Amino acid sequence: MVARDRSIENLIERLNRLPGIGPKTAERLAFHLLRIERAEALALSKAIEDVRAAVKTCSVCFNLDAQDPCGVCSDDSRDRTMLLVLEDPRELARFEDVGYRGLYHVLQGRMSQLENIGPDDLTIAPLLLRVKQAPPAEICLATNPDLEGEGTARVLAERLQPLGIKVTRLARGLPAGSSIAQVSSSILADAIEGRRTLS
Amino acid sequence: MVARDRSIENLIERLNRLPGIGPKTAERLAFHLLRIERAEALALSKAIEDVRAAVKTCSVCFNLDAQDPCGVCSDDSRDRTMLLVLEDPRELARFEDVGYRGLYHVLQGRMSQLENIGPDDLTIAPLLLRVKQAPPAEICLATNPDLEGEGTARVLAERLQPLGIKVTRLARGLPAGSSIAQVSSSILADAIEGRRTLS
Repeated sequence: MVARDRSIENLIERLNRLPGIGPKTAERLAFHLLRIERAEALALSKAIEDVRAAVKTCSVCFNLDAQDPCGVCSDDSRDRTMLLVLEDPRELARFEDVGYRGLYHVLQGRMSQLENIGPDDLTIAPLLLRVKQAPPAEICLATNPDLEGEGTARVLAERLQPLGIKVTRLARGLPAGSSIAQVSSSILADAIEGRRTLS
Repeated sequence: MVARDRSIENLIERLNRLPGIGPKTAERLAFHLLRIERAEALALSKAIEDVRAAVKTCSVCFNLDAQDPCGVCSDDSRDRTMLLVLEDPRELARFEDVGYRGLYHVLQGRMSQLENIGPDDLTIAPLLLRVKQAPPAEICLATNPDLEGEGTARVLAERLQPLGIKVTRLARGLPAGSSIAQVSSSILADAIEGRRTLS
């Protein structure tokens, strides 16, 4: 049998290592990259090279940026009394979009028994060091509202507690625009438990 | 608001141009490429570069290979009396896997009204030229068993008919291992229409 060129097999294998890209999708993408204009394909290759050349991990907050410290950490106009703790650098842009102007700390993941990710695999030690050196007025734990995010927040809260800083958590409740008849019972339970006094 | 580095936006945009990769997946992949080992990310970049440097389209059969004519076309041990017509170069490996040892012709797609792909967008003209110059004993139309594949096969059969070469089509019927109780009615109709005499 005629083997496929080694370079095709190699590209398929490389694409297959990406998250959510199975062998069939990897094959489809590889042949797409062979079919399109050469310049188009090489632009993707170069974009990967460029991003790895340009982007660094901020040594203060572990955000990804072209500079270290990153744009947020080095911006003196930001509110340094507020620190928002995130799982993933992607989430940072969402908070910027809704007008948050404090500081951040990126954990680089969340604790997970299933995936064998413990506190030491996250940037918890640098977080503790950082808030000891320059304590904010409030640390908001913005890990995700799921089992692993909650577990991570609980561990963080325990470790931050001795420092005497106010620790908060993002609100859980009804998503704006949802219908009470259709939300899940855990959402509704959250909404009842977190109910606010109006008058 | 703090903008993301231009190189990240560019990579997301490039990934988003790939088929089946939406903006959310593109973002996820871009941040994955930022998180993994630098060498891993650059290996993907290089794999794209290499594949475009190494792989050419065969000027005889339009297969993708490191040489032109491709490994199949230049292999004198292949059965030159048989020509299998395919939509896509990916499908070639499947036929090799099941032991087919004749020649191929890759159409580079199939006719589609919806996508405005007509006969002239495929490699039909080079196919006709090729079989006139060196007529095989049989041409098997191995386009897919769907509306567009059947339509393409019909047009091909019409154009090949004046050449007096035997033209065949891959069998349609029950997929091996399937359960008659569960296959669709169009599969069952194919199986009845294509029934074979045993004795």
